[in-house]
Amino acid sequence: MSIKERMMSKSFSRRELIGTAGKMAAGAAIATAGGLSLPKMATAASAEYPWPYKKLDPEAVAERAYHRWYKDYCSMAVADGLIGTLQEKVGGPWKNFPLQTVRFAHGGVAGWGTLCGTMFGAATATSLVAGVEDGDHIINDVLYWYSITNLPTYTPAKPKLAQGPITTRADSPLCHVSVSTWMSKAGVEFFTPERKDRCARVAASVAQHTATLLNAWADDDYEPVHSSNMRTHNRPAQNNCLDCHGG
Amino acid sequence: MSIKERMMSKSFSRRELIGTAGKMAAGAAIATAGGLSLPKMATAASAEYPWPYKKLDPEAVAERAYHRWYKDYCSMAVADGLIGTLQEKVGGPWKNFPLQTVRFAHGGVAGWGTLCGTMFGAATATSLVAGVEDGDHIINDVLYWYSITNLPTYTPAKPKLAQGPITTRADSPLCHVSVSTWMSKAGVEFFTPERKDRCARVAASVAQHTATLLNAWADDDYEPVHSSNMRTHNRPAQNNCLDCHGG
Repeated sequence: MSIKERMMSKSFSRRELIGTAGKMAAGAAIATAGGLSLPKMATAASAEYPWPYKKLDPEAVAERAYHRWYKDYCSMAVADGLIGTLQEKVGGPWKNFPLQTVRFAHGGVAGWGTLCGTMFGAATATSLVAGVEDGDHIINDVLYWYSITNLPTYTPAKPKLAQGPITTRADSPLCHVSVSTWMSKAGVEFFTPERKDRCARVAASVAQHTATLLNAWADDDYEPVHSSNMRTHNRPAQNNCLDCHGG
Repeated sequence: MSIKERMMSKSFSRRELIGTAGKMAAGAAIATAGGLSLPKMATAASAEYPWPYKKLDPEAVAERAYHRWYKDYCSMAVADGLIGTLQEKVGGPWKNFPLQTVRFAHGGVAGWGTLCGTMFGAATATSLVAGVEDGDHIINDVLYWYSITNLPTYTPAKPKLAQGPITTRADSPLCHVSVSTWMSKAGVEFFTPERKDRCARVAASVAQHTATLLNAWADDDYEPVHSSNMRTHNRPAQNNCLDCHGG
């Protein structure tokens, strides 16, 4: 039986999976630490796409995202921090982009807890700035960073709650895993001011980090960090196999 | 301790989770079967958003999505079927929408296996057509339909492989779960012509179903079917709790 057949038939032992995950983690660490030997990527260029970029102030982007969260939640918060700022700062094609189109991703898409909505806002902005090919590498790195980082990382200048939240690492880019991990450790329920402040700060953190990567890209100083999960696992997958397959 | 340390340290027993899931399933069934007593939603109207819509031919949209998949994968396939057709059929603001901006969602977003990329293309189009409020209900229903349906449902007029794939039900909108379930039952690997044809047909199926819902909405004949997962579970979540929390 292949790994995938056994995973699906649940005949994997926990020991086997730990071993497999350990090898995968080691592989990922090597790929991550050494950088990838990817050829320097050409910008996906066309007259119309991607759109012109001016480097952003990551802190200003983060603060804007934090406050926008309270109006439109996570995905649009990040989109407003990045795209909204570019609409004002660059104009041109940015002006016509309907920010509302990413709002549906709140709560991991209409509350389904799939990909953290912040990633959709970040990915949409990244795609518009860096194009299909470079954008894919940057998005891959944002998801990887989100998974391995104790979030939130950004402290607002004008927070809604003075007492900042504890930080947690999700080992996953999924909304459900990220927020449930935090809720459990913080000991608070979902529909609370504390959880809202936490998610708004996560949105701000993602916007800040994405702006930092896009600025590096604009300076021709960006190299992809994380390898392709799809190639590592021979299927689309996260790296937290045992969270669901740990039996 | 299992499942992310008992859902990050709440000591759920399997019995507790089964009980909870059972209640949730019962609740979901009631909400779904009876329709929701939601007030008829007002269209989120503005001079600029959402954009003008003309009813689509769901089969034509599906066939277009199927073939576009082979160039740009799942998310852009669905976006091209829906948005690409509206760019030609309606024009106006649709003309300026950069289709490439949704391509990053392939493989559940850059190969991470999170939300099936088809959902992102469908959600973007839905948001642009129906606006924030109505769009959210339609997107919620598309994710629900995807989760409970044996996919793919659409048979292309001109398929790449004459022998159609088996169909599988994922009980989840996640790419990893959907494609792994299918791969296991079909007995094929990821990087194969059979899996490509399957995913292209899933994209076509999603485009077809979304067009059908949007047409009903345009006829003022759409009522939301599925309730809010976030309200049911008191956090963003799917309905397949035991797939990860089953011990």
